[in-house]
Amino acid sequence: MENEITESYITMPAGFKAAGVACGLKTDHGNSGPMDLLDLNMVQSDVPATVAGVYTKNLIKGHSLQRTIRVIDAGAKIRALVVNSKNANACVGPKGYQDAVAIAEAAAKELGCSPDEVLTASTGTIGIRLNEEKVMAAMPKLVSSLSTDAASAHAAEKAMMTTDTVPKEVSAKLTLSGGKEITIAGMAKGSGMICPNLGTMIVVFTTDAAISKEILQPALNKAVAHTFNRVSVDGDTSCCDMVVVFANGVSGASIEAGSEDLALFEEALTSLSLDLSRMIANDGEGASKFIEVVCRGAKTAEDAQLIVTAVAKSPLVKTAVFGEDANWGRIITAAGYSGADFDPEKVDIRLAGLLVCKNGQATDYSEDEASELVKQHDIKIEIDINQGDFEDRMFSCDFSYDYVKINGSYRT
Amino acid sequence: MENEITESYITMPAGFKAAGVACGLKTDHGNSGPMDLLDLNMVQSDVPATVAGVYTKNLIKGHSLQRTIRVIDAGAKIRALVVNSKNANACVGPKGYQDAVAIAEAAAKELGCSPDEVLTASTGTIGIRLNEEKVMAAMPKLVSSLSTDAASAHAAEKAMMTTDTVPKEVSAKLTLSGGKEITIAGMAKGSGMICPNLGTMIVVFTTDAAISKEILQPALNKAVAHTFNRVSVDGDTSCCDMVVVFANGVSGASIEAGSEDLALFEEALTSLSLDLSRMIANDGEGASKFIEVVCRGAKTAEDAQLIVTAVAKSPLVKTAVFGEDANWGRIITAAGYSGADFDPEKVDIRLAGLLVCKNGQATDYSEDEASELVKQHDIKIEIDINQGDFEDRMFSCDFSYDYVKINGSYRT
Repeated sequence: MENEITESYITMPAGFKAAGVACGLKTDHGNSGPMDLLDLNMVQSDVPATVAGVYTKNLIKGHSLQRTIRVIDAGAKIRALVVNSKNANACVGPKGYQDAVAIAEAAAKELGCSPDEVLTASTGTIGIRLNEEKVMAAMPKLVSSLSTDAASAHAAEKAMMTTDTVPKEVSAKLTLSGGKEITIAGMAKGSGMICPNLGTMIVVFTTDAAISKEILQPALNKAVAHTFNRVSVDGDTSCCDMVVVFANGVSGASIEAGSEDLALFEEALTSLSLDLSRMIANDGEGASKFIEVVCRGAKTAEDAQLIVTAVAKSPLVKTAVFGEDANWGRIITAAGYSGADFDPEKVDIRLAGLLVCKNGQATDYSEDEASELVKQHDIKIEIDINQGDFEDRMFSCDFSYDYVKINGSYRT
Repeated sequence: MENEITESYITMPAGFKAAGVACGLKTDHGNSGPMDLLDLNMVQSDVPATVAGVYTKNLIKGHSLQRTIRVIDAGAKIRALVVNSKNANACVGPKGYQDAVAIAEAAAKELGCSPDEVLTASTGTIGIRLNEEKVMAAMPKLVSSLSTDAASAHAAEKAMMTTDTVPKEVSAKLTLSGGKEITIAGMAKGSGMICPNLGTMIVVFTTDAAISKEILQPALNKAVAHTFNRVSVDGDTSCCDMVVVFANGVSGASIEAGSEDLALFEEALTSLSLDLSRMIANDGEGASKFIEVVCRGAKTAEDAQLIVTAVAKSPLVKTAVFGEDANWGRIITAAGYSGADFDPEKVDIRLAGLLVCKNGQATDYSEDEASELVKQHDIKIEIDINQGDFEDRMFSCDFSYDYVKINGSYRT
């Protein structure tokens, strides 16, 4: 699926509005600059929407996220999502959940809907109580700012960014079998476990197709599996990670179970997830390089995953890529300790397209050529273990001085 | 066991000699300075010694190590160990094993023993063939330099160091139940997966007690379990990691299965392993802080291990410690994704002795006090999950700018 749209934003599907405002959470911590101060957003559907979600597997879950999971599991249709940045609303005790409830209630009051139709999400510092009064005081302004226009949608994206350096917005238009057109849009904030504390990946998709929850949830699971679940900035998993998709049906087009339209929708959702995943890895904290790790020829899907995960997370591989060092020994070593079962003497490795290792030993590649190739921004690492038919892939980025700087700085 | 000896070196036990020379491997790569150039060592026992070993679990094993494992498994008594630095002799195909055999043969010829009595180890760059001619040309000089004196022993330690900044040597004297005295000595090189490629932890112990392999191997396994197996500099596992212990019996004292002497010996070996483990973590690449992570109250031993491993390896925890940030949110988050089973709302965390988290939420600790405490060099992280009786511990160090610098630099 090629994406022919030049500008993307979350309100492109019919019947969605968005807004991003500054409620003062970022000011609390001494930030400055008008765009830097956006810290509260809302995505709203004109009509109740079907919502599916995928969440962090971390045992520690933020209070806003805990509430969202409960609301989605309860099965009601959803009108809006409120996201604040700068504070994760996590590990602060019973007040944390109460704050999330209070925020949903304030939003519901302004929107004229039930609090059970409002989702909540938070990203930022853990263990410090959210200043929920600031959030609630800003609610009338947030809701009155809701708009379908691109500027409001971009503001919504910026309001949930933390150490992200670029906005991450995607969209696609699909023509279904009956000739009806639907739109899918998505926005994301980065997955680096981010200064001041927890970065959190938050991804929101909207679509104006009508889709039942029974098929929307599996479609999202499928889309996430080899995209967002294959991004590693630093290997840490935040307590607030969340991907949600809103389907409001305003286009008048409906997608049915088992249909070709569903296959088309799943393909598009996966493709957009892939695009956002690449953007997230590319914008990893302090990243100077984008890394794609591919494993082929594994005996099992699990082995392929173990290998791409170990290589993508290895600090030594990540620092070597930062240093533009064609250091394939660290790659095969990471594969070796991954826990996957393979014969070291059958391993082939391509680094930036160059075959540097064949049957587990160095080829007679030119170090000069390798050194030139690893100067590129996008570095592909391909590991073929030649033992079977399974493959997997993971997106990552390098470890730079800036990564240490960003993550070593004090939580202010 | 208190270690009252001020200077320690590997030849303190009776009947051991050592030497370290420069054979030109480090010169190949442009290093300079007389001590920097030591790159080949030997530890030799005057009489055939019982040897036990513990090795990397990485599927990828260096050729010198593969040979050593085979020789030790064959069960012969051992006369000597030859270690070269600067080249890992790994992933170079069949020539790698042949080179290890050739080195053992050259050493055996000079020593007047069988090649099957000589162990080999290598540490350094992976995937580039070892210049075994340089090693063999230096063998007469290496063997003629063998001596019991401290200077030769220190040279042996220096010859296997790579990015280590300080030598790591320990010893203990024990008086056995019959009044006989034995000595144990150990030396180590660092565990950072080290520039230019694979750092490798290599640890050698010597003792002049007589101990059968049947009890020496379990004693070593026990000593390693919660010491060397609990050190993480960057989470990567080298293909050449090795711990060996030589017992030559020259003291005339013998340690028997089931005896109190054996318990004393095991305690001493474990204690020395602990000392070396601390030194290795403390000297991690670019480390500015030493980190000890303790988990208590786990339901199972595995849960305790999962938690200390996740926390000790977390790049976010390591950069926060580097940045002197009392960021306990990253600690509880790492515990949360470790895979261990626990109730987040029962977790207590002490950082540098200060209770910062009680029942999964922030205490009212003073940020100023916390900030002062985390300025110390040694940082203890204590996580009590209050669910059971199991505990574990891991040694680590911070991630600094220098870590990135050392590991990002080109392999020359």
